[in-house]
Amino acid sequence: MKTSLLFSTLLFSVYVSSSFAQEALPEKVPAPAGATVTEEKILLGKTLYFDPRLSKDGTISCNSCHNVMAGGDDNRSFSAGVGAKLGGRSAPTVWNSAFMSVQFWDGRAASLEEQAKGPLTNPVEMAMTDHNLVISRIKNIPGYKALFDKAFGKNSKIDIDNVVKAIAAYERTLITPNARFDLYIKGDKKALREEEIKGFELMKTTGCFACHSGANFAGPTLPIGTGFYMKFPTFPGSAYDTKYDLMKDMGRFDVTKKDEDKHLWRVPTLRNIALTAPYFHNGSVAHLDEAVRVMAKTQLNKDLSKKEVQSIVAFLKTLTGERPVQTMPILPSTDATTLTP
Amino acid sequence: MKTSLLFSTLLFSVYVSSSFAQEALPEKVPAPAGATVTEEKILLGKTLYFDPRLSKDGTISCNSCHNVMAGGDDNRSFSAGVGAKLGGRSAPTVWNSAFMSVQFWDGRAASLEEQAKGPLTNPVEMAMTDHNLVISRIKNIPGYKALFDKAFGKNSKIDIDNVVKAIAAYERTLITPNARFDLYIKGDKKALREEEIKGFELMKTTGCFACHSGANFAGPTLPIGTGFYMKFPTFPGSAYDTKYDLMKDMGRFDVTKKDEDKHLWRVPTLRNIALTAPYFHNGSVAHLDEAVRVMAKTQLNKDLSKKEVQSIVAFLKTLTGERPVQTMPILPSTDATTLTP
Repeated sequence: MKTSLLFSTLLFSVYVSSSFAQEALPEKVPAPAGATVTEEKILLGKTLYFDPRLSKDGTISCNSCHNVMAGGDDNRSFSAGVGAKLGGRSAPTVWNSAFMSVQFWDGRAASLEEQAKGPLTNPVEMAMTDHNLVISRIKNIPGYKALFDKAFGKNSKIDIDNVVKAIAAYERTLITPNARFDLYIKGDKKALREEEIKGFELMKTTGCFACHSGANFAGPTLPIGTGFYMKFPTFPGSAYDTKYDLMKDMGRFDVTKKDEDKHLWRVPTLRNIALTAPYFHNGSVAHLDEAVRVMAKTQLNKDLSKKEVQSIVAFLKTLTGERPVQTMPILPSTDATTLTP
Repeated sequence: MKTSLLFSTLLFSVYVSSSFAQEALPEKVPAPAGATVTEEKILLGKTLYFDPRLSKDGTISCNSCHNVMAGGDDNRSFSAGVGAKLGGRSAPTVWNSAFMSVQFWDGRAASLEEQAKGPLTNPVEMAMTDHNLVISRIKNIPGYKALFDKAFGKNSKIDIDNVVKAIAAYERTLITPNARFDLYIKGDKKALREEEIKGFELMKTTGCFACHSGANFAGPTLPIGTGFYMKFPTFPGSAYDTKYDLMKDMGRFDVTKKDEDKHLWRVPTLRNIALTAPYFHNGSVAHLDEAVRVMAKTQLNKDLSKKEVQSIVAFLKTLTGERPVQTMPILPSTDATTLTP
């Protein structure tokens, strides 16, 4: 299901053929076969997404680190899980994650469904002992039964597969359309200012879209489960390696244990990038202008001028889309339990 | 402004005269003189209420411990603040807190405005060094300026007073009307089942409404800043003192240092009590039926039968009101900062 080396070797042909044809965000969101979406499933998923009782001590929900009132992340280098334990990689944004063909920085989950299983039992995230505990916790909250019945049919199973199906259905609604860039690419030439267009052109000529291609600025559209990976740094040896600790985390290698996957990372989206500081897998860069400089140097071996960086940053800010107005879920009540450890 | 002994001595006359006249939740919410409420102020307040960047490391918002998607609290004995530090008292519900004449378990804040200043700089809660840091954090988030301008007028001050005024304005919208009890007391005699009415009658005859009187089941209506306090346990010496560690925390004494305030507590609301386990200032009791038994014994020196407890619990569940449908705030973006400690 997953590829890695393939796309780093294919890279430059992809670049030549498609990198200049950036697209607006599609209206249709990809989903695995059979992943039907209903309002009831979305409501259940949203409720679960916001429910901190899905964590060991009742303090961490999906939204704690992937905050949909903000940039879909937590503005931290590393997230704080149960007991304030720190994760090892920066929380990626949940916005438009439905357009990513694999999930996690190392692409180890083929779908949003598979992704959602991870943090629940990660000891530095939601820290549940196992999925059975997640399910018994949910079953002990009486109001969830009706929500599952409405989402999956009367007396449907409350099991981990239905839990993550619902969460993924909700996440597929977390799309940010109508960024100024989208209006521009659809024909409203006044949607971008001159400097922003200059930044767009600069990103083309500099080579940024070699990797950050496609509607989500995260690579070509690939089947769900097939990742688009790049080596970071592609040009090791710059001062940034040490300054931002870029060589420590082996990336996709930790999943595959293949030498060729060392320092390979799923190419992240550039959409809403202005909302999601700090940057990179280790959240080591606080400012967007510095992130642009680091990318140009480490990935393309180019030194950008201050003005070039400014223009590119101006363009990147046009990728901030509209966050939809959402109603808050009303969490079913906990009947007389305490969650303090 | 604040009284304490007064109401514990006045108690039994209050009981005789008013305890049987329970009221529905009023539509009008009390507020300090000059606390004008506008939609813009509420929106700013809601945004601040949900913004975790108001905490030192960006992990804790007001909503973390006073979760308005849930019972207005966090279903924990003690809340977890920045660095997973534990507070010393159980988070009270924010629902209907606007009807409380003083805030905090020990009544040390006269208003919601004054209350909101506390957790921001409490080292085991949001852990900001001081209010100046709160304000500079907010000023560094460019989008807040427009929200303050709309709430308080063009180029209005971004200062701690306006911050807490906005938060309090939002909190005054957190009201849960139309509990089944309210429908009943307004004349819909079918709104309560027989056992629930029995529980209501039992609470009258047992003496529960001596303290839990008034529309909010938290004592008589008093001017803002004037607290209604009771000693807990009023009848010390039961096995519960040890079992639930009831004698350790000195309550209001810690504020006033007066001997007569030892173990005095602001009488909490019974509204939505079924949503807010665990119970008491130390969250030591996980189940509502046990909380009822403990109250009867420690406050009224009565031993309730199992059936009596059942009926009272059935009645208490009719005090769960309607949580209003709320839209999520969209947090203004953090421009290139990282909050990891």
